[in-house]
Amino acid sequence: MPAETTGFSQTVTTALDQETAIARTEEALAAEGFGVLTRIDVQATLKAKLGVERDPYMILGACNPQLAHGALETESLLGVLLPCNVVVHTEDGTTKVSAVSAEAMLGIVQNDALHETAADVDERLGRVLASVAADGA
Amino acid sequence: MPAETTGFSQTVTTALDQETAIARTEEALAAEGFGVLTRIDVQATLKAKLGVERDPYMILGACNPQLAHGALETESLLGVLLPCNVVVHTEDGTTKVSAVSAEAMLGIVQNDALHETAADVDERLGRVLASVAADGA
Repeated sequence: MPAETTGFSQTVTTALDQETAIARTEEALAAEGFGVLTRIDVQATLKAKLGVERDPYMILGACNPQLAHGALETESLLGVLLPCNVVVHTEDGTTKVSAVSAEAMLGIVQNDALHETAADVDERLGRVLASVAADGA
Repeated sequence: MPAETTGFSQTVTTALDQETAIARTEEALAAEGFGVLTRIDVQATLKAKLGVERDPYMILGACNPQLAHGALETESLLGVLLPCNVVVHTEDGTTKVSAVSAEAMLGIVQNDALHETAADVDERLGRVLASVAADGA
């Protein structure tokens, strides 16, 4: 099944459970040269801060050091938009993996020199999502 | 001195050193209801991964739980764009603090219901930057 896209994201569905999908996503990111620099457990954070109940929702902040270094050399303020997020979330018992569209996100910088990097990131993240979807097919 | 803006960011200059500016930024964020959920030391990360030398550059991932919860209820995929980053960076010995423009970043979602939240975030981040700039004036 191809990824579902919005103007700012791409999403796949997987039969894996949330925890397994997170682990497989991190492995697939590593295979594309991305380390996971940050992890935000939104479910746990909002439960702790607000007492609200939400479905599992983990934001992984993924960074490819080589691409990030080049992009920061091009645009020194780009850090306000880094890293690129991949979200593993469960809705109605179904696990989904969503990646930001780097082309859309970096598009707001309006620096044509970033276009190639953004397209590269999106292709890599697309392969990550396809890999996780295939594992859970 | 007013903040310098680009289409995707606002920036102030401060006489504080990097470490003091980070601490003061975190205090000012807390006063506006933002916790710092993630910290990425870009200088250390790129030194470790690539061996390159860069000026100090710390990305703080700031989240106001109430605003984030409401925004996620409005747009369930919004996590690919969270949290809102504030970057404390040093260039040629001068410390600068830059915040993402939430209006620009959330603009790519093209959901009018997010506009008010984004404007609220940007006003709060503007006050954070003004506070840190005033400390270092």
